[in-house]
Amino acid sequence: MIRVGVIGGSGYTGGELLRLFTMHPQVKVTVVTSRALDGRPIIDTHRFLKGFYDLKFENIDPRAVAERVDIVFLAVPHGAAMKLVPELIDRVKVIDLSADYRLECGYESVYGPHSDPRDAVYGLPELHPEVADANLVANPGCYPTGAILAAAPFVKSGLVDRIVFDSKSGISGAGVTPTEVSHYPNLAENITPYSITTHRHKAEIVQELGRMDDVKISFTPHVIPAMRGIMTTAHIFTSKDVDEDQVKSLYSELYRNCPFIRFNVPSLASVRGTNFCDLYVEKDRLTDRVVVISAIDNMVKGASGQAIQNMNLMSNLDQKTGLWSPALSL
Amino acid sequence: MIRVGVIGGSGYTGGELLRLFTMHPQVKVTVVTSRALDGRPIIDTHRFLKGFYDLKFENIDPRAVAERVDIVFLAVPHGAAMKLVPELIDRVKVIDLSADYRLECGYESVYGPHSDPRDAVYGLPELHPEVADANLVANPGCYPTGAILAAAPFVKSGLVDRIVFDSKSGISGAGVTPTEVSHYPNLAENITPYSITTHRHKAEIVQELGRMDDVKISFTPHVIPAMRGIMTTAHIFTSKDVDEDQVKSLYSELYRNCPFIRFNVPSLASVRGTNFCDLYVEKDRLTDRVVVISAIDNMVKGASGQAIQNMNLMSNLDQKTGLWSPALSL
Amino acid sequence: MIRVGVIGGSGYTGGELLRLFTMHPQVKVTVVTSRALDGRPIIDTHRFLKGFYDLKFENIDPRAVAERVDIVFLAVPHGAAMKLVPELIDRVKVIDLSADYRLECGYESVYGPHSDPRDAVYGLPELHPEVADANLVANPGCYPTGAILAAAPFVKSGLVDRIVFDSKSGISGAGVTPTEVSHYPNLAENITPYSITTHRHKAEIVQELGRMDDVKISFTPHVIPAMRGIMTTAHIFTSKDVDEDQVKSLYSELYRNCPFIRFNVPSLASVRGTNFCDLYVEKDRLTDRVVVISAIDNMVKGASGQAIQNMNLMSNLDQKTGLWSPALSL
Amino acid sequence: MIRVGVIGGSGYTGGELLRLFTMHPQVKVTVVTSRALDGRPIIDTHRFLKGFYDLKFENIDPRAVAERVDIVFLAVPHGAAMKLVPELIDRVKVIDLSADYRLECGYESVYGPHSDPRDAVYGLPELHPEVADANLVANPGCYPTGAILAAAPFVKSGLVDRIVFDSKSGISGAGVTPTEVSHYPNLAENITPYSITTHRHKAEIVQELGRMDDVKISFTPHVIPAMRGIMTTAHIFTSKDVDEDQVKSLYSELYRNCPFIRFNVPSLASVRGTNFCDLYVEKDRLTDRVVVISAIDNMVKGASGQAIQNMNLMSNLDQKTGLWSPALSL
Repeated sequence: MIRVGVIGGSGYTGGELLRLFTMHPQVKVTVVTSRALDGRPIIDTHRFLKGFYDLKFENIDPRAVAERVDIVFLAVPHGAAMKLVPELIDRVKVIDLSADYRLECGYESVYGPHSDPRDAVYGLPELHPEVADANLVANPGCYPTGAILAAAPFVKSGLVDRIVFDSKSGISGAGVTPTEVSHYPNLAENITPYSITTHRHKAEIVQELGRMDDVKISFTPHVIPAMRGIMTTAHIFTSKDVDEDQVKSLYSELYRNCPFIRFNVPSLASVRGTNFCDLYVEKDRLTDRVVVISAIDNMVKGASGQAIQNMNLMSNLDQKTGLWSPALSL
Repeated sequence: MIRVGVIGGSGYTGGELLRLFTMHPQVKVTVVTSRALDGRPIIDTHRFLKGFYDLKFENIDPRAVAERVDIVFLAVPHGAAMKLVPELIDRVKVIDLSADYRLECGYESVYGPHSDPRDAVYGLPELHPEVADANLVANPGCYPTGAILAAAPFVKSGLVDRIVFDSKSGISGAGVTPTEVSHYPNLAENITPYSITTHRHKAEIVQELGRMDDVKISFTPHVIPAMRGIMTTAHIFTSKDVDEDQVKSLYSELYRNCPFIRFNVPSLASVRGTNFCDLYVEKDRLTDRVVVISAIDNMVKGASGQAIQNMNLMSNLDQKTGLWSPALSL
Repeated sequence: MIRVGVIGGSGYTGGELLRLFTMHPQVKVTVVTSRALDGRPIIDTHRFLKGFYDLKFENIDPRAVAERVDIVFLAVPHGAAMKLVPELIDRVKVIDLSADYRLECGYESVYGPHSDPRDAVYGLPELHPEVADANLVANPGCYPTGAILAAAPFVKSGLVDRIVFDSKSGISGAGVTPTEVSHYPNLAENITPYSITTHRHKAEIVQELGRMDDVKISFTPHVIPAMRGIMTTAHIFTSKDVDEDQVKSLYSELYRNCPFIRFNVPSLASVRGTNFCDLYVEKDRLTDRVVVISAIDNMVKGASGQAIQNMNLMSNLDQKTGLWSPALSL
Repeated sequence: MIRVGVIGGSGYTGGELLRLFTMHPQVKVTVVTSRALDGRPIIDTHRFLKGFYDLKFENIDPRAVAERVDIVFLAVPHGAAMKLVPELIDRVKVIDLSADYRLECGYESVYGPHSDPRDAVYGLPELHPEVADANLVANPGCYPTGAILAAAPFVKSGLVDRIVFDSKSGISGAGVTPTEVSHYPNLAENITPYSITTHRHKAEIVQELGRMDDVKISFTPHVIPAMRGIMTTAHIFTSKDVDEDQVKSLYSELYRNCPFIRFNVPSLASVRGTNFCDLYVEKDRLTDRVVVISAIDNMVKGASGQAIQNMNLMSNLDQKTGLWSPALSL
């Protein structure tokens, strides 16, 4: 059994880790921390877990956590993880779900000061198999997961000139705290574009696709009336003419050993609650555009599930372990 | 391994059985039938199951099904099950998710003619442990499951005079076929009462609670903008004065060995995708009313999950087998 | 022209008054106050009003308001109105949308201390035509409006023994400030009972129906995934046998001169954005129950529209003036 | 008074015309046709109109309609309008809400055979003031209305190279008939791209913007969980560098006499139920992209409201007549 700990277990990402761990045959959750909720049963916060956990939140320092676990998941805001990692990394493996270690350069200009110039592996296992050997994994952002997986095979081919990523996300990515945006009358029966030309996740997308080729990238996110899921419509413009079958084989080739990549009709329902990334490819017959659409569950493949997928690889387990269940499609 | 078959596998109930079977360690699905979809891969209909099933729908007669399975689940409309059961019942165990065998008397006045006057066990295992020995189980209706579990301990006490069940359901109970009621502009941002004084499920509620005591029962269902879940607000009027603790202990007593009954804040989110029935009890301090609220997932505890719970008991397995997972609470 | 002012114009009720005033041919809005937003254009807060108002919020004392208006609408929290009314009432007519003047007795036990023991007319014009002569109108609560209108004709008949009001409301009644309950992931795909046996509005319902007859009243509200609207399912138990036509004529008789009462299929869509109260009556053929269902828009007939209806009557205008428009049914 | 008739009054577009006519001081609806509902009160179909119309649907020929009206609105499917117009056009003015007269060339390749090669004015009054003199107006499609208004000032400037229109629509555009797409469990908590590279409305967008300049146009629509509204995110790539203020002044200049164009935070809520087209402009500071977002109500500015705006202009009325009301923003 892998003993795991969750630092910052009171939010949605922490709750989702705990949900997924109940289905993992090789995991034992030994510690869950929350400063604000120290001593409180975790099921009082995550009521849907009633019957599954007897643990209480603890407020202990990272070293004390490290003594009781093999792997730590950091489900804390960016800026907080960089303070925890130096305390943890010599003792245990760390999977950081924050943004702190995702960017190789330019973190400061996007997020602000950084205090720990350490390298991590970018934990998108379909493209970074070296996570298997990592001690510190930077778990990707939710939008970048969907966007990068939608574009990577095509960009690698050298055929792409420009991509416009138009993303539509459920609100859970914004967290457990009520805000103007998550206020039901503002979100329902509407769609809310935000950070229209300035979203911080763009840097990750540019970094990862930039490793493959030099392409022009635009990214605009929207929030839709949904709890979970991100659908990214990637409008991909090519530098030379391609046909649809040719494009499709780029995708099936690159992802042929990737169990969580499926080719499917694009629908958030088909991936709800799962670690799948469903992809759909269609060539615009009249123009130089190919539309690739990806659908993920932002809480699973876009956060906690991908973290567990990384843990599986780091632990020499089949990457599907504990994650192989179908969607709650309705 | 238990070899199971699903007759009528193209609808929501069939799809939900197939979803749940993927998580059951002792089940092998060997046949799924659909006349209309004979020969078509089941994942073309249930796209969310892509990666989990290679089976195709078959159009075969019940006897041919019986030869390849140990237990058959009937996910067919009422009226159809009564034609299948006589062909099946001497060969295999049958769990009928339709209404055909739920009512001991009066079926005709509620549903119409009945051609097979055979007894079945009413498959609400918390109240009918004899399902363990049954060959034919009549799986309860979705509303009756929530209503009966909300009221049974109290009714058994002899303290109850009258109950008003006011139920609010997600739309999935109405099935996979688009209708006026399921049309998004009619359902969203609204609540739709229907069969206001005449819903057929009332007969089941009256039958089952009537075994315990003579109480006056009213029932009105509504559809809310939700895919899954039924919340039933049971307004229970007592014939003598009771206090809240006394009532609560009636519930904890009767359900003390029932793993799927939880006492929890009432929320469809906490049971979404699960076989739980969450209960909440509150005494009106100024009147003779006790409000008991039950929350279930109509597709799981209200249909397919309860069917599998029954299968587990009929197969001498722990009733939690394959069903013990937490909710997709958001 | 009637010069009107709104004290407390930054919330949903204030915004709804302002929306409705744009369609009123006899109203000129001269002042809108908000302490927090003093000096800010009201369209910065109520962006949907862009093009309709040039006014800015002001922070002025009630006497200064009184000098510039003929009627003041108080769209402030309970507790605040009782401090404003003594300053205003000798100068202008006041319509108070808070709870402060609704209860003839017992305010303290429900809401807390009260500093102004003045009488007001309960502004449900279908039952209190004397609003026409009032200087101070206590505009009813949203739940009481739907509940009382659903029950009054029947209760007046002396035939009613007990009523269970089971209400389902959109979230706008909870106001413009984001909370746990209004947080989209908590509200969507769910239904949330609250104040299950203790809601403050019960006192209004009891007071108003208690004027007519002595009946047993229960009330439980729920929030549904909707912005607007309250549907109240009134389960009415009679002391003697009645038939459906008899009951229906009680309703059509009492409401025969009430243009905003319609008999209609119960649907929040049909009243959305309007001042209508749609009613539906159905006798349970097998029991002593009659179900009456009312549908209102909580923001209009349940608050701001009814306030304007009262203003019309107090100003000797046709009560329909400015309010006679059909629903935005989808 | 303008006597108007609606041919095909049983669907959403017809119902919306009837809703808007109740607020128009110069309109008298004299005839509403529906073959299927001949003789039935229109309020039985459009229940939200109860109290506003006594008319019954009629099944009469176009000439008989023409005798009783000054203007006819055709709310019929494409293919049907071209059969009606030749019968009507010499007798009355016609506003056709179908696609039949929108395309100057190429109709056949998009929609199929066309039997009436007559010219009409494309009824987007902000760009086609000549509607005032038209006898036959082709009312624009819903997507084209939002897309063209979002791009026209920029395209006219000659600065645009490429536009990607990524549109998100409420479901009402798909009509009153329940379908797979409008089935609540398929639509809720999801987003559904469709006609991803092949939507028929693209031809209108290309035609109208093509009058202004030669730009590369891509268009992909999605359906979101909403009844009304279309938000179009126009990713506009320029051929030379521009700054945001420069772009904004292109818009305010072209639309300076257009009362229904507002510059506003993009939100479907702010335009719900109204004839406004809200626009938002943001320059991507790091790239050659400008994002322009338009929000309209597809039923009003995208269909029936724009038709009435056209009627006003054709009747020498202020274009705002009967249309100047604020949104039902929640």
